[in-house]
Amino acid sequence: MAPRRLKVAVSGLGRMGARHALHFLNRTPRAELVAAFSPDEKEIAWGKQHLEPYGTKLYTNYDEMLKHEGLEAVVIATVTTVHAEQAIKAINADKHVLCEKPLSTSVEISQSVVDAAKTKPHLKVLCGFSRRFDPSYRDAWSRCDAGSIGRPSVFRSQTCDKLDPSGFFVAYAQFSGGIFVDCNIHDIDLALWFFGQDSVVKSVAAFGITAVQPDLRKYGDVDNGVGVVEFWGGRIACFYSSRMMAAGQHDMTEVVGTEGKISVNANPIKNLVELSEPTGIRREIPPHYYGRFEQAFVVEANEFTECCLDDKPLPFKLAGAVQAVKIGCALQESLRTGKKLWFDETGRRVEHAQL
Amino acid sequence: MAPRRLKVAVSGLGRMGARHALHFLNRTPRAELVAAFSPDEKEIAWGKQHLEPYGTKLYTNYDEMLKHEGLEAVVIATVTTVHAEQAIKAINADKHVLCEKPLSTSVEISQSVVDAAKTKPHLKVLCGFSRRFDPSYRDAWSRCDAGSIGRPSVFRSQTCDKLDPSGFFVAYAQFSGGIFVDCNIHDIDLALWFFGQDSVVKSVAAFGITAVQPDLRKYGDVDNGVGVVEFWGGRIACFYSSRMMAAGQHDMTEVVGTEGKISVNANPIKNLVELSEPTGIRREIPPHYYGRFEQAFVVEANEFTECCLDDKPLPFKLAGAVQAVKIGCALQESLRTGKKLWFDETGRRVEHAQL
Amino acid sequence: MAPRRLKVAVSGLGRMGARHALHFLNRTPRAELVAAFSPDEKEIAWGKQHLEPYGTKLYTNYDEMLKHEGLEAVVIATVTTVHAEQAIKAINADKHVLCEKPLSTSVEISQSVVDAAKTKPHLKVLCGFSRRFDPSYRDAWSRCDAGSIGRPSVFRSQTCDKLDPSGFFVAYAQFSGGIFVDCNIHDIDLALWFFGQDSVVKSVAAFGITAVQPDLRKYGDVDNGVGVVEFWGGRIACFYSSRMMAAGQHDMTEVVGTEGKISVNANPIKNLVELSEPTGIRREIPPHYYGRFEQAFVVEANEFTECCLDDKPLPFKLAGAVQAVKIGCALQESLRTGKKLWFDETGRRVEHAQL
Amino acid sequence: MAPRRLKVAVSGLGRMGARHALHFLNRTPRAELVAAFSPDEKEIAWGKQHLEPYGTKLYTNYDEMLKHEGLEAVVIATVTTVHAEQAIKAINADKHVLCEKPLSTSVEISQSVVDAAKTKPHLKVLCGFSRRFDPSYRDAWSRCDAGSIGRPSVFRSQTCDKLDPSGFFVAYAQFSGGIFVDCNIHDIDLALWFFGQDSVVKSVAAFGITAVQPDLRKYGDVDNGVGVVEFWGGRIACFYSSRMMAAGQHDMTEVVGTEGKISVNANPIKNLVELSEPTGIRREIPPHYYGRFEQAFVVEANEFTECCLDDKPLPFKLAGAVQAVKIGCALQESLRTGKKLWFDETGRRVEHAQL
Repeated sequence: MAPRRLKVAVSGLGRMGARHALHFLNRTPRAELVAAFSPDEKEIAWGKQHLEPYGTKLYTNYDEMLKHEGLEAVVIATVTTVHAEQAIKAINADKHVLCEKPLSTSVEISQSVVDAAKTKPHLKVLCGFSRRFDPSYRDAWSRCDAGSIGRPSVFRSQTCDKLDPSGFFVAYAQFSGGIFVDCNIHDIDLALWFFGQDSVVKSVAAFGITAVQPDLRKYGDVDNGVGVVEFWGGRIACFYSSRMMAAGQHDMTEVVGTEGKISVNANPIKNLVELSEPTGIRREIPPHYYGRFEQAFVVEANEFTECCLDDKPLPFKLAGAVQAVKIGCALQESLRTGKKLWFDETGRRVEHAQL
Repeated sequence: MAPRRLKVAVSGLGRMGARHALHFLNRTPRAELVAAFSPDEKEIAWGKQHLEPYGTKLYTNYDEMLKHEGLEAVVIATVTTVHAEQAIKAINADKHVLCEKPLSTSVEISQSVVDAAKTKPHLKVLCGFSRRFDPSYRDAWSRCDAGSIGRPSVFRSQTCDKLDPSGFFVAYAQFSGGIFVDCNIHDIDLALWFFGQDSVVKSVAAFGITAVQPDLRKYGDVDNGVGVVEFWGGRIACFYSSRMMAAGQHDMTEVVGTEGKISVNANPIKNLVELSEPTGIRREIPPHYYGRFEQAFVVEANEFTECCLDDKPLPFKLAGAVQAVKIGCALQESLRTGKKLWFDETGRRVEHAQL
Repeated sequence: MAPRRLKVAVSGLGRMGARHALHFLNRTPRAELVAAFSPDEKEIAWGKQHLEPYGTKLYTNYDEMLKHEGLEAVVIATVTTVHAEQAIKAINADKHVLCEKPLSTSVEISQSVVDAAKTKPHLKVLCGFSRRFDPSYRDAWSRCDAGSIGRPSVFRSQTCDKLDPSGFFVAYAQFSGGIFVDCNIHDIDLALWFFGQDSVVKSVAAFGITAVQPDLRKYGDVDNGVGVVEFWGGRIACFYSSRMMAAGQHDMTEVVGTEGKISVNANPIKNLVELSEPTGIRREIPPHYYGRFEQAFVVEANEFTECCLDDKPLPFKLAGAVQAVKIGCALQESLRTGKKLWFDETGRRVEHAQL
Repeated sequence: MAPRRLKVAVSGLGRMGARHALHFLNRTPRAELVAAFSPDEKEIAWGKQHLEPYGTKLYTNYDEMLKHEGLEAVVIATVTTVHAEQAIKAINADKHVLCEKPLSTSVEISQSVVDAAKTKPHLKVLCGFSRRFDPSYRDAWSRCDAGSIGRPSVFRSQTCDKLDPSGFFVAYAQFSGGIFVDCNIHDIDLALWFFGQDSVVKSVAAFGITAVQPDLRKYGDVDNGVGVVEFWGGRIACFYSSRMMAAGQHDMTEVVGTEGKISVNANPIKNLVELSEPTGIRREIPPHYYGRFEQAFVVEANEFTECCLDDKPLPFKLAGAVQAVKIGCALQESLRTGKKLWFDETGRRVEHAQL
């Protein structure tokens, strides 16, 4: 008899939801995609073609889907605004949860997911910080953890998207929580990972411009943002995000330690091809984050499955996701007000500069 | 009802056979690994642990395995010496075949597989030149094919292995067919792909040394080989193979055209991590070919499966595998005798220099 | 008759003064090093060996040197604290001046040099921002100027020194003006070059830690600094400086425009050598800024000479040097107080956030 | 009194001669360019503008120039066909000689220069293998010499020129000695440097095509050449030369040792600028060899001067230049005849394969 497989449902079959569905269907041997939900007709049509023939039942009602017989885990990849609600429902229905980042653009709502999860300690509830599953980031972290760069002290990290001339991200801005919550949330999470999840923020300051999309202003957002976070204990994180990269997507991280430096993706590549042309030597880079992180998403699916099936601890704690949103929201506040925000050593907001 | 999946068996569960088995078991959604064969006790033990629980039946007799009910395709990953025999048996048993390279180290035996395949035109018989499935090589080829470098004229390609201090490859040399057949067979196949499968060899010359393993001499082999192949029509291919790379595996290809150059893997990387240390800036590279080509093998498994199920043409013809072995054997002969070998425009061996 | 050569004196024969002296002696065909001054016995001893035999007269009194017959130009490379005084004296004595950066760590004193220069418009008075003469920076600037990246919008630049375990820079900190004035002054100057010399600062915020040299605290300095400068008109500059690079000196600049990005020295190299070793692939980088900018200093010497001899306009205005120091000092103030500083559109310091 | 300077004359003021002249005039502090010769009116006109005003006397008669009072050294940069004749005349006139490579395209004539030099052991006679003065090649050699890659065993080196659509090199081919003597002479010289000047050739084989300039055939030349040289003692050198690089000049060398590999210029760059554009990430490379080796030529001028003035031994022996031409000519013969040439352990040409 074959070992049993985790019965998984995916909620949301948009761009990333469809990918999650296919990862669980085809690239996660120990999982079985038994159900999928979408409120959207086009997404359901896609599901009929790509999922249903392989045994996945489609639902247009999330609550109905939760009742799918034998369902054990739910992957939430809907719009951010319903992440938390769906996650809490799933937890209450006793399902493991893998929820796309962020849990919510609100700190309080994010926290409510963590609180719900605490009531069901036997469940695995994971926030999908995909970079935590990327082999390069993992390699970098292991080296840091082994002390190879001394004490990590300065963390510089960016999430830069290829310019989308359609300006889609302007309309999207009203739901995204802003560039620091939407893009840099990954970098913030990485900072907490590399500096230690118990790092306490001392100050937050954000800066931004609208270089290509002035309309972002109306949502208090920018298309290029720089954020600096000081942590108690003598550490600094510097974040950059942009919506106007010409060559493609470019995430990049540098961890500067007292004895060395590690960088991840300082030199992005699409593949191993280099072109010598009359204009010089050229290489292409991935246009979108999925071209960069496809493998990380597949690892995520497999490890989440393994944790559920074998009752192993998740690779990182859910509470960190709230911490990341908290920092992201503070950066957005700083961006909006132009002010630097201060926190004492217990993490409490204070009015005065902390030296 | 779920679409049907191809019933596949793997023959040989050694290093590469085990990988093929896992690829078909876990990473080839449209295939089903129904059977596996190995004459080796340890390999069978491995199969009992990693395959049998998932529904794969294990055989210690190849002929018995071929009779497995419903079996449609066989992946041959045993020692090279039995590739051809097993491939022909499978063909005769009306199975599709994916055979590891080379078909044989002998041109005649390789040809016999092609001849057998011709008798069953409905079968898909593929020689596993994994680089043909590598995204970087495919990208390079598409660009060449689109004319972006003008006429490909000089082809330089290498297959260099990390030094294995155990000297395993010395013992292996007596079966491998020699360094040009074992390592450069990939580069030869690539040359034929990029120059055109109908390219006719004009001359062949090979050179070699035993820099680290003098014992290779007794098998007429070397640990560093340079081979040059001239093709009629004004094209040159230059191959390099080595068994003593310090940093890891390094395959590399350069296609020089009249209007540009494309290189593949000129700068090998293990991942996207770079280390700044007191000794400078450093990156690691994959130790072995599987670290470099894992994804290509998975694509190979999926495309082979698709061709079998949907009766699509294979991405390249089996006959090319014979051509590659023929060139590889000519290089080995040139290496042994020190002589340059000549061929006329019909590909027939001649005694005198062709100008 | 050979064309006449500019009669030059160098003031200060310390590390950089000695280099300037040799550049004017040996690598500036149109100049003649007629005199050199140092108050330091060891430096004079060095001069006796390396300069005097070639016709350079040595002085231990700066004022005396200024009276050297026929002297036309002075290169000031003494300690920063006397830059301004010596520059003004030279101007008053009707000499052209090439003064090492910064003119002073004080804005007022820097301005006094500019004021002095204004009284003698026929003199060439240049502040030695060496990167302005670096071929890579010049190439980058020309491309930006030609519009190849659209509108330069985000400027990221760093000056990072190799860790000097002797801790020399701690003692040095009391005179250096602090890390933003000492190291990032170059990056600030570059920002003004790439964004336009007339750019008006909107806000300044600085952050820093002492990761390796806690003693820097007593001088209000840090060993790792991050500074962010917003300019009116929607531009941001982000600076990083560090005293603890393991691999060597690393200056780096990225100019992000609305249609492309240009980077300078993202991948530092000492030379064109790459090493493949059991630990991977490695290259070395220059240990110090002179290894990186030697050629720029030589170009500087030659262009300064040409401007003096041929009465050509200098490549950039002296006033910019005050602007750079002003921004550097504002960053230092922000670092010390933890506060973000604000400026209105006329550049006047204001109390409240400008949005 | 200033230390005396070497009185130098340059013969030939063509492209490279003019550069040599300027190097000795402006960038070689211990030398003085007292004279220059050219039979060409245009070159003399150039000299009148760029040299004469600085005290260099121009000659249209080489023999007259040799009689210039006080002349100590001659730099020969005329067409290859008169290199040897002029070098011998200069030696006989008791002048030090720096002669551009090759001494001659004929082995015998090259040897006659060496013979002449032997009669005047007090003279410095140097063949201008510029790469011997390149900092990267020197760094690579020092590392090899220090044993850092074990025993150098395989040497791969290329000299590839940017495609010159004017086809100048076709007319030039009748004097150049052929691509192996003209381009790869540098690589051959490097092989002898890295393998040891006493290395004895065992076999030589060359291959070539005319991919862009079929007219080269009439001079027995090619526009892409591959040459393989086996040395006694188990070493192989593999050379590549091309006249059709799209992106620019690209020389490159790899030294593969038993314990590591060193490469020089595997990734050519024009400067430290990288461009991110909609088409990807791009860098430019130097269009011509002077862009790559300018600094090496300057070092060459300075070291030659130093050897003459201080009677120091030259960095390498003149005899090696004959050895390099000998190998280059053998490669040309192999190219013409299609035959592999054999040599015994004493370097004597033999008919039969040496195993």
